[in-house]
Amino acid sequence: MSLERILDAKSVAIVGASKNVTKRGYQAVRTLLDEKYEGAIYPVNPKEKAVLSLKCYPKVAAISEPVDLALIATPAKAVPMVLEDCGAKGVAGAVVLAGGFSEAGLEGKALEQEIVAVAQKYNIRIIGPNTSGALNFKSHMNLVGIKNAPGGDIALLTQSGNMALTLITEASVKSDKGFTYYVGVGNEADLNFHEYLDYFRQDPDTKAILMYVEGLRKGRAFLQSAHLTTAKKPVILFKSGRSSTGKRSAGSHTGALAGDAKVAKSVFEQAGITVIENSDELFPAAEALSCLPPISNNRIAILADGGGHATIAADKLSDLGVELPELAEKTQGMLREILPTAASVPNPVDVAGGTDSDPLLFAKCAEIMLADPNVGGLLIVGLFGGYGIRFAEELTVIEEDAAHQIGKMVQITQKPIVLHSLFTSLSPHPIELMRYYGIPIFDSLDIACSCIDVLSRYGNHLAKQAAIPAFALDWGKGAVDKAQQMIVAAGKEERSVLLEPEGKKLLQWHGAATFKDVLAASADEAAKAVAGLDRPVAMKIVSPDILHKSDAGGVMLNIKTAEAAEKAYHRIMATAKEYKVDADIRGILISPMAESGVEVIIGTKMDDQFGPVIMFGVGGVFVEVFKDVVFQLLPLTAESAAQMIDSIQSASILNGLRGNPPADKAALVQLLLKVSEIIEAYPAIIEMDLNPVIVHTTGVSVVDARVILGD
Amino acid sequence: MSLERILDAKSVAIVGASKNVTKRGYQAVRTLLDEKYEGAIYPVNPKEKAVLSLKCYPKVAAISEPVDLALIATPAKAVPMVLEDCGAKGVAGAVVLAGGFSEAGLEGKALEQEIVAVAQKYNIRIIGPNTSGALNFKSHMNLVGIKNAPGGDIALLTQSGNMALTLITEASVKSDKGFTYYVGVGNEADLNFHEYLDYFRQDPDTKAILMYVEGLRKGRAFLQSAHLTTAKKPVILFKSGRSSTGKRSAGSHTGALAGDAKVAKSVFEQAGITVIENSDELFPAAEALSCLPPISNNRIAILADGGGHATIAADKLSDLGVELPELAEKTQGMLREILPTAASVPNPVDVAGGTDSDPLLFAKCAEIMLADPNVGGLLIVGLFGGYGIRFAEELTVIEEDAAHQIGKMVQITQKPIVLHSLFTSLSPHPIELMRYYGIPIFDSLDIACSCIDVLSRYGNHLAKQAAIPAFALDWGKGAVDKAQQMIVAAGKEERSVLLEPEGKKLLQWHGAATFKDVLAASADEAAKAVAGLDRPVAMKIVSPDILHKSDAGGVMLNIKTAEAAEKAYHRIMATAKEYKVDADIRGILISPMAESGVEVIIGTKMDDQFGPVIMFGVGGVFVEVFKDVVFQLLPLTAESAAQMIDSIQSASILNGLRGNPPADKAALVQLLLKVSEIIEAYPAIIEMDLNPVIVHTTGVSVVDARVILGD
Repeated sequence: MSLERILDAKSVAIVGASKNVTKRGYQAVRTLLDEKYEGAIYPVNPKEKAVLSLKCYPKVAAISEPVDLALIATPAKAVPMVLEDCGAKGVAGAVVLAGGFSEAGLEGKALEQEIVAVAQKYNIRIIGPNTSGALNFKSHMNLVGIKNAPGGDIALLTQSGNMALTLITEASVKSDKGFTYYVGVGNEADLNFHEYLDYFRQDPDTKAILMYVEGLRKGRAFLQSAHLTTAKKPVILFKSGRSSTGKRSAGSHTGALAGDAKVAKSVFEQAGITVIENSDELFPAAEALSCLPPISNNRIAILADGGGHATIAADKLSDLGVELPELAEKTQGMLREILPTAASVPNPVDVAGGTDSDPLLFAKCAEIMLADPNVGGLLIVGLFGGYGIRFAEELTVIEEDAAHQIGKMVQITQKPIVLHSLFTSLSPHPIELMRYYGIPIFDSLDIACSCIDVLSRYGNHLAKQAAIPAFALDWGKGAVDKAQQMIVAAGKEERSVLLEPEGKKLLQWHGAATFKDVLAASADEAAKAVAGLDRPVAMKIVSPDILHKSDAGGVMLNIKTAEAAEKAYHRIMATAKEYKVDADIRGILISPMAESGVEVIIGTKMDDQFGPVIMFGVGGVFVEVFKDVVFQLLPLTAESAAQMIDSIQSASILNGLRGNPPADKAALVQLLLKVSEIIEAYPAIIEMDLNPVIVHTTGVSVVDARVILGD
Repeated sequence: MSLERILDAKSVAIVGASKNVTKRGYQAVRTLLDEKYEGAIYPVNPKEKAVLSLKCYPKVAAISEPVDLALIATPAKAVPMVLEDCGAKGVAGAVVLAGGFSEAGLEGKALEQEIVAVAQKYNIRIIGPNTSGALNFKSHMNLVGIKNAPGGDIALLTQSGNMALTLITEASVKSDKGFTYYVGVGNEADLNFHEYLDYFRQDPDTKAILMYVEGLRKGRAFLQSAHLTTAKKPVILFKSGRSSTGKRSAGSHTGALAGDAKVAKSVFEQAGITVIENSDELFPAAEALSCLPPISNNRIAILADGGGHATIAADKLSDLGVELPELAEKTQGMLREILPTAASVPNPVDVAGGTDSDPLLFAKCAEIMLADPNVGGLLIVGLFGGYGIRFAEELTVIEEDAAHQIGKMVQITQKPIVLHSLFTSLSPHPIELMRYYGIPIFDSLDIACSCIDVLSRYGNHLAKQAAIPAFALDWGKGAVDKAQQMIVAAGKEERSVLLEPEGKKLLQWHGAATFKDVLAASADEAAKAVAGLDRPVAMKIVSPDILHKSDAGGVMLNIKTAEAAEKAYHRIMATAKEYKVDADIRGILISPMAESGVEVIIGTKMDDQFGPVIMFGVGGVFVEVFKDVVFQLLPLTAESAAQMIDSIQSASILNGLRGNPPADKAALVQLLLKVSEIIEAYPAIIEMDLNPVIVHTTGVSVVDARVILGD
C-alpha cells in the first residue's frame, strides 16, 4: 500500500486538540495554521466546541468530510480507543506521538501490540508511537512543531527527535538546502524504515534521503529497499549506538536493538548506502549528493590560493582514498601560462598570489582543470568570496563574475565542484551566488573533503551497482533430504549443535568439501584407519556432551602409526570419561592432518537485524589480534565472494608473501558459495564455523566444522 | 638570547615604507597606526619625507632613538643591504616578509645564507623570510595586516599565512578567545620554532600554544623545548604534509622537508604535545586547553536532554578511548530523585524531557554528577541555551540562572565542562554567559568530544611527564675503542655497511647479544664448525660486494652435518662467484639456527627532522601487512622501552596467545636499551636493522644484524 494518503494527506484530524497553549494538542493546530497547511484541519475533542476558531468535533467519526490522517496527541492509554474511532471513519494513517510503549517496559510493549492489532483491523498504518511527528514540506503539513523548517529536496528519516531538530537547524543556518519530507519513525510499531524509503524512492521531488538510525526492526527488508533506492538516488545514513555505552543510551531511547556495528556498516555499504561516521558530515553529505553529479573516476583536483589549505586537503583526501592525479601536461602548461611563476600546477594547484588582484583567475583555472580528462571533480579551497573583505572592496564584483562562471561549470561538465571558503559564515554575495548554482560551501576543510569523498563513493557504487545481487528474503531452497533429516534428528535429541562428523557430512553432501575421516568405535578400528592412510592424523572425541573437545583432553594430533592410534584411542576415551563420567560418546574421529597452506576462518551468523551474514578472515593471530574480518549479507554471488576475500587487510597473504606461492582463491570462492547455499537451504542453522580452513596452492581443506541450530 | 626586544619590541622601523596604498610598506604603517601600537613607529624610505604623517627616515641608522625591531618590506634582493643598515643601528631583530629565498631554488637559497651571515655579524635575529609577519596582541604590534584579530591567551605559531588567517578568523567568529602573540615562522632561516616556544613558555600571559607545522628544521631541539613546555602549559599542534600529494604542496610552500608522518606523530606525543589530526579540531582544542583544567582520570560523564545526541557522543568518546564510567549508586539515586521516571541515569544521563519546563535541572544534575569521584569532567549535549528559542521565551531567564551556576562549577570542582548546543550559532544570552565563565561551546558534537579527548590526553601526560627522559642532544658517549676502529676501517674501505659478522661483534662488545657464529674461510673450517655444534646452522656469504645475500644464492639454511656443510660451502662460493665474478669474499658465516619464539624487528634510523629514532614491531607478515610498528626518539630509558613494546597492536602476541608461553619481554627491553646505547655511541651509524630477532621464553636471539654508516 502506498503511503500517499498518509505522507501527502489532504486532511488531518488532530485528536486531543486543546485550547491550553502549553498542550501539544494546541500547538499542533497552531502550527498547521501558522505554516499554512494546504489541506483541511479537523480538531477533535469532546470537551471543546472550537479550537483556534476551527470547529472542534467530539470524535473523528463525527467529521462529515473525508479524513486521511489522524495526529493523535492523547496519552498512550487512550490510543486504542482513538484508533477504533479512526477506523470507523476510514482514516488511512495515524501519527501516534505519545511515549510509554515498547520503549518503556513490558506493559508498554503490550499496549503497543494492542494498538497495532486495532490498526490492522481497520487497515490504518501507524507512524510511531513515541515519535516527534512528521512533516510534508510541500503541502506544509507540519505535524512536528519545528518552526521555519526549510523546504528543499532531501527526505529526512530519523529515530531521534533531537537529531531531526539538529539537522533541520543545520540546514537553515549553514546552507540554503531543505527537505521534502520528515518522518520521525519512533518505535516503528507498524510502519518501518523500508516502507518510508520505498515511498521516497518513488517521489520525484526527493533527490536524496538522509537517515539517522539507532537500530532497525526489519533490517533485511530495509537493505532490499535501500539497494533499489540507491540505484536511483543516494541514501545517506548515520548509525549510532556503536559503543557499549552508546548502546546503553540508544536502548533507553527507542527500544530498538542496536546491532553489531561492523556488520551493519558492511551490509549498508553493500546496499550502496553512503554511511557517515562523523555527525558533522551528515547533513553536508546529503547536501552535496542531493545537488551534484557524483564523481565517476575517484580522481579529483584541488585549486587553492595558499599552500596551507591545499596541503591539509590533499592529506585528508589521501586518507579517505580519493586520488589526486597529476594533471595532464597540457593542462599544466595552460595553467602556467596564466599563473605567476611561483605557482604550483601539478595538483593541488596553488595560484601563489595570482588571484590576489584578479579573482577571475579562479574561474579560468577551474575551467582548464575540469577540462582535464584525469579530473572527475574539483575542490576549491581558501579565501574565495572574501577577497573583497580581505583585500579590497572592488574585488567583490570580480568574484561575483567568477562565481557566475564557476557556478555554471557543474551543469556544463557534469563534474561536481565543492567550495571551502574561510569567509563562509560571513556569506558575502559571491558565496551566495555559488550557493544559487547549487555548489555546497563550507568553512571546514574536513567537511569539504568529506563531501568530495561521498560523491566519489556514490559514483563508485553507481558504476558497479548492477552487479550487486538482490538481497534474498526467502530461505529454505536447495535443502538435501538426508541433511534435513539429520538436522531434525539432532533436534529430537534436543541438541543445539551438530557433531563434527555431521557438520562435515553436511558440507560433503553439498559438494563443499570432501573428507577422508573415519569415525572409529574401537581402538582396533582407529588403528586400521590410520594404517590405511599416508598422512598423520588428528584424533578427536565425538560426543554431544563434550563441546570443547580440547579442554576435555579429547584431541590428539599428529598420530602417525597404528600403534600410536591404538594408544591414543584409549587415552582419549579415559580422559573423556574422567571429564564427564556418563558422557554419551559416539566414537573417535580420525582425520588426516591437512597439508600446509594459509589458515582462514569462515563463519556465519544470524544477525538480529539483518538475518544471515557471513564472515571471512585470515585465521589465527590475525583474527585474534587485528580483528581483520569482513562481513557480507548471505546469500553470496561468485562476484561478492571474490570481492569479500580481496577486501580484508591481510588479503595479500593469500596472494603469496615472502616467497610463498599464492593460495587457491578460486577454491575458496567455491567454498564460500557452498556455505552460502547451505545456510540458505536450512533456516534451522543459526551459526556455522569452519575454523580453521586451510587454503592450499591447489584446493582447500576444512579442518573443523561447527554447526549451531536454533529452536 | 631572549626574544623580548623582538616580540615585545618598544619601537619598530618599517623599511620600505610607502605612500602607495597598494604597497605592503604603506599597509604596514597604516595597520600599526590603526591598531594603536603602543611603541614608536619609524618609517624608512630614502625617497619620502613622511608617510601617513610620520617622519620618514632615509635609513635605519639615521633614526636617533633606539630601534628594537625592523619590518623589512623591500624585495628580497635588497635585504642584505637593509640588514647592514639595521646592524649599524643596533637593531635586535628583523621581520623579513619577502619570498624568493630557500623556497625558490638554489639562487634563493644562496641569498638566504647571505642574509643569515649579515644578521649573525650584527647579532640580529631574523623572523622569516617568506613570512606573513608577527603580531603582539598586548602591545598591538600588528605586523601582519589581519584586522580586528582578537587578543587573548593563546600563542600562535604557523608555517602558513592562510592557516593563521583561518585560525584567527575562527577565533573571532566562533569563540570569544584570542591570542597573545602570532608569529609566521616563514623559512626559519634563523629563528626556529623551538626558540619561539622557549619564549612563550616563559610568558605568563600565554596559557596555551597553538602550532601549524609543515616541517621542522631543528626537530630535536624543538622536542626538547616542547618537553619542557608541556610540563607547564599545553602545546597543540597540527602537522600537515602527511600524504605524498600533501608533501608536493607543502614542499612548494616553505621549502621545509615534511618528515615521515608516523615518526613525527610518535615523537610529538612523546614530548607531551597534543597532536590534532582534523583541522576543524585545532582551534577548539587550544580553546579548551587554554581555559579549562585537564581531566585527570580519563573518565567523563555526559548530561543530555535527548537520546540522539547522548548516543552519538558516547560512541565518539569510546572511539577516542575516553571512558564513560557508570555513575556511583549514590549519584544515580540523587539524579533519580529530581528527574522523571523515564530518565536514564547510569551515564550518559538523559533527562528525558525533565528540563523542558525547568532548565535549572541542568545545573542540579551537573552539580550532582561532578561530585561523583568517578567523574573527571562533564560534557553537556543538546539544546541548552536554546530553551527560550525552542519552547517558551520565559525559559531564557531560568537558563541564565543555570548558566551562572554551571559556569562557577569549573572553578569550584577543578573539573572541566564542555558544552554542545544546537543553538550555539544564534548566541543566546545563556550561551554568552557560559562563555564568560570560560566554558567552550560548540554546535558540533564531534568537536565537543574532541575537546574532552584532548583535555584527557593532556591530563594523562601531566600525570606521567616526570618519568619521560629529556631528549638528548649530544651524541658519541660510551663508544668502545675496538668498535670505533672497526667503523673507521669500514669507512677507509669506502664501505657504507658493516658486514654481518662486524655488526654482530658490535652487539657483542656492548653486551647486547652473544653469538656462536664462526666465519669459515674454507670448506674444512665450515665442516669443523658444524661438527662442534648441537644445532642445525645457517650458512651465509660474507662479502662487501654482496649485500642482498639471498638474491645471490648466498644463504643456505638448516645444515645439520659436517658433510652437508662442506657441500654447502662449495655451492655458496660457486653461486656467489657466478653472481659477481670478482666479489671480495671474506668467508662464509656459520650461525646456529635460533630456537623458536616470537619474531620481532628492531630498526633505527636517522630521521631528517628528529635525529636518531628507533622502530619496534612484531616481525614477518605483521610488519608487512599491518605496518604495526612504533617509533620513539633515541635514547631510550627502561621505562620508554617497555612502554614501546606494549604499545604495538600485536603486543598480545608477546604475552602468549593460543596457549603459547609468554615471551621474555625483560630481555627484549635490555636489547632495545643496548641498541639505544650503541646508536648514541657511534654517530656514524645512520641505520641499524636487527631483523629478525627471536624472542624466546627466556632470552632473545639476534638472527641478522645490518648496520649502515653515513658519510
